[in-house]
Amino acid sequence: MATYIPPTHTENPYLPFGDQRGSPFYGRDILSVKQFDRKDLEYIFGVAHEMREMVQRVGTFDLLKGKILASLFYEPSTRTSSSFTSAMERLGGSVIPINEVRYSSVSKGESLPDTVRTLECYADIIVLRHPEVGASALAAQFARKPIINAGDGIGEHPTQALLDLFTIVEELGEVDGLVVTMLGDLKYGRTVHSLARLLSLYNVRLNYVSPAILRMPEDIFSELDEKSIQQAESDKLDGVLVETDVLYVTRVQRERFADQAEYESVKDAYVIGADTMSQAKERMIVMHPLPRVGEISMEVDDDPRAAYFRQMEYGLYVRMALLAMVLGKA
Amino acid sequence: MATYIPPTHTENPYLPFGDQRGSPFYGRDILSVKQFDRKDLEYIFGVAHEMREMVQRVGTFDLLKGKILASLFYEPSTRTSSSFTSAMERLGGSVIPINEVRYSSVSKGESLPDTVRTLECYADIIVLRHPEVGASALAAQFARKPIINAGDGIGEHPTQALLDLFTIVEELGEVDGLVVTMLGDLKYGRTVHSLARLLSLYNVRLNYVSPAILRMPEDIFSELDEKSIQQAESDKLDGVLVETDVLYVTRVQRERFADQAEYESVKDAYVIGADTMSQAKERMIVMHPLPRVGEISMEVDDDPRAAYFRQMEYGLYVRMALLAMVLGKA
Amino acid sequence: MATYIPPTHTENPYLPFGDQRGSPFYGRDILSVKQFDRKDLEYIFGVAHEMREMVQRVGTFDLLKGKILASLFYEPSTRTSSSFTSAMERLGGSVIPINEVRYSSVSKGESLPDTVRTLECYADIIVLRHPEVGASALAAQFARKPIINAGDGIGEHPTQALLDLFTIVEELGEVDGLVVTMLGDLKYGRTVHSLARLLSLYNVRLNYVSPAILRMPEDIFSELDEKSIQQAESDKLDGVLVETDVLYVTRVQRERFADQAEYESVKDAYVIGADTMSQAKERMIVMHPLPRVGEISMEVDDDPRAAYFRQMEYGLYVRMALLAMVLGKA
Repeated sequence: MATYIPPTHTENPYLPFGDQRGSPFYGRDILSVKQFDRKDLEYIFGVAHEMREMVQRVGTFDLLKGKILASLFYEPSTRTSSSFTSAMERLGGSVIPINEVRYSSVSKGESLPDTVRTLECYADIIVLRHPEVGASALAAQFARKPIINAGDGIGEHPTQALLDLFTIVEELGEVDGLVVTMLGDLKYGRTVHSLARLLSLYNVRLNYVSPAILRMPEDIFSELDEKSIQQAESDKLDGVLVETDVLYVTRVQRERFADQAEYESVKDAYVIGADTMSQAKERMIVMHPLPRVGEISMEVDDDPRAAYFRQMEYGLYVRMALLAMVLGKA
Repeated sequence: MATYIPPTHTENPYLPFGDQRGSPFYGRDILSVKQFDRKDLEYIFGVAHEMREMVQRVGTFDLLKGKILASLFYEPSTRTSSSFTSAMERLGGSVIPINEVRYSSVSKGESLPDTVRTLECYADIIVLRHPEVGASALAAQFARKPIINAGDGIGEHPTQALLDLFTIVEELGEVDGLVVTMLGDLKYGRTVHSLARLLSLYNVRLNYVSPAILRMPEDIFSELDEKSIQQAESDKLDGVLVETDVLYVTRVQRERFADQAEYESVKDAYVIGADTMSQAKERMIVMHPLPRVGEISMEVDDDPRAAYFRQMEYGLYVRMALLAMVLGKA
Repeated sequence: MATYIPPTHTENPYLPFGDQRGSPFYGRDILSVKQFDRKDLEYIFGVAHEMREMVQRVGTFDLLKGKILASLFYEPSTRTSSSFTSAMERLGGSVIPINEVRYSSVSKGESLPDTVRTLECYADIIVLRHPEVGASALAAQFARKPIINAGDGIGEHPTQALLDLFTIVEELGEVDGLVVTMLGDLKYGRTVHSLARLLSLYNVRLNYVSPAILRMPEDIFSELDEKSIQQAESDKLDGVLVETDVLYVTRVQRERFADQAEYESVKDAYVIGADTMSQAKERMIVMHPLPRVGEISMEVDDDPRAAYFRQMEYGLYVRMALLAMVLGKA
């Protein structure tokens, strides 16, 4: 695979020329975590932090007043679509919600490029969720307006990875020097793959804790190894919990196991409860991309180290930052 | 059952402190008609009346500019969701519409508390419609932001009851001294139960007209009896029509009858037509929660006493009032 | 059929009186292309052209700030609903999106008039898409607020016809003197019927190119013949391509053919490719209502004569114009 070079949209007829200055992301697509270097991340997180402060101070402001976001979801994702909708509305912009694509033109056989070229007549930016890998890159190839990838199948979900990393930054102050332990289904989990890639831009140590059949894929392991990231694997949390600064929990799904007895035998090893927390660092944070279904016991929710709901809120700020930057307003 | 005490949310980070003054409902949940006393109702209806005047004068105004409502509907209700959406938009606020919950995180098994705790990261207030009794109270228990119950199964639908009563106030000037006749399915009708409860705060007389198998439940009857409300039952409208000030019509559904012959024999007794109206008071009003399917003949629609479409409009004003009050702006 | 006279709504309580001046369309329904004469079209296109210039200059402006559109779609149409939503939002107004009517009140048996009379309590204008012919006219008969027909089954889709004609005006400067060739399924294509009717108000020549079983219906042919419009039919594009100024392509659907061999034999004759374009006029434009599924090869997309995506954008301006005019603001 060649190095990924994101397409650049130099022309946006709806933006006055002056708006273009000030943002290195103006008019660009957000397709993959691979498009960011450490400097980019610092820039994004700086803007996201400002968004956090603005929201906490005034709730909403009119930075993107008059801008329209087409929210094009080929598969439902309440969390992600609500987050982008809120982000646009908190910036004073509007949203065209398109949630039932399967019933509409698309089911009449329209291609994704045609759908996108139609919607960009109505909107200033398109957020796309699609079940197929590469859908966002395809859309970006044909669109004149910027595309933000909100998840393309088992491919990428870059804004999730950005909000995960932003959560770490906001909660723990910095990333360098941290020990991050990823727990659960590391094989199929799109979020842990993307987060691992972003973390590899920093000086971190990674622990992968999973059942044998759900180990972190070899290609991610190799990719990070080449960047000299220290990585360790285990099928138990016990050994690494005490040194962990960030515990990133994902769901172990029954369906992944051919042998149900095997599932039953391992599942409890990956449930976080009050007892787990009692053995963890005082400054550790627990993260989860949500939804959770039992991986973290509700008794943990009131622990100040439980960061997973705050994580949702950080997602709002990251998406506000991206929208503002891509539309040339930050 | 213990007396219901609604949870109070004292902290809303998105509202400046000064906004909190002026509304006794600031930050509170709206879950049940049981939470209101007569003074509360007067306060709500006063604000709702102001909303009516403002809408008629200027259509829309920016009282809630910058506020975001998450409209979370686990079952469809075009009427209720459109009404809340319009209420928020007429106050200058924005809406995150979430209508297809069954396809999304929830179908992945996420709990209602988790969904609500996620959405409150994006919104300032949540309107919840859910098929299960008690869902709104459960949501309110976990949420930091205010919850408005937009119907929880056969439980409560407090904003419907409030709009029903507000309709009576606006149409007839006052409630004390009125004779209210409820007609149709009084057994399963959530709306008549809640309205009867609210009316028991006033000095009214109630007539219940229904087929024998669809009589007003004993617990409602007893509850109002304890408050010395005069109640009378009948299976015919004839005897009470002439004294009726408010005729509240509900639908008698075929499915409620095991014996279809019985349904056929009674159904026409509960259809309101021009002949019914000719025997009624000149100042009577006819109400219906809608949708109607034949219970009121279309020939009645042009009668000035037909209040059921105006009732929908009063609902807008009541919901505007509640949103403004709960968000500390009225 | 009697001459169509659109209902007039003289009273809109949400609009100050002064707003009524300036628009001959204030408070009127948009139901059928038959309600427009050439002067009306010039007026609409004049406003639409201004909308185009405003959008290109400032993106969005607050002409309809505070107005609410109920977007009531009984069948899905992403393109049309997105276009109206964007039109309303670019004018600073708000939208109540109602897309899942089949699940809601309607499935409980509510009549269209009741649904419309409810929604007009919440909105200032209703855009209606419905599978049944005449649905919009029925809605308009009962509504106090204006109705815009966004397609009623095989009946009318007047805003599509207006945007088609506006595309021709904007792309080619004027309509008189043009040769318009309609290609594909001319029998079932609602869009070509309505466009032909609008074109008959001008001095044009029309070519109808289709398989024998999908010819332009006799009643359209006669109607235009009475207005002395020159019309010619063919089953091949070859003979008329060279003189064509506007090539309006529609889809030939396999399902229309009882004999699949016949479909296979004709389908390629109606596909537009680079070779077709090489034989066409330099100033010709190619139009298509979209979605397309192979009728126009993607290699044509980059030809400056390919107007079908610009056509979508013109649709935005036409709908902005109609909304502003009907709400008394243009």
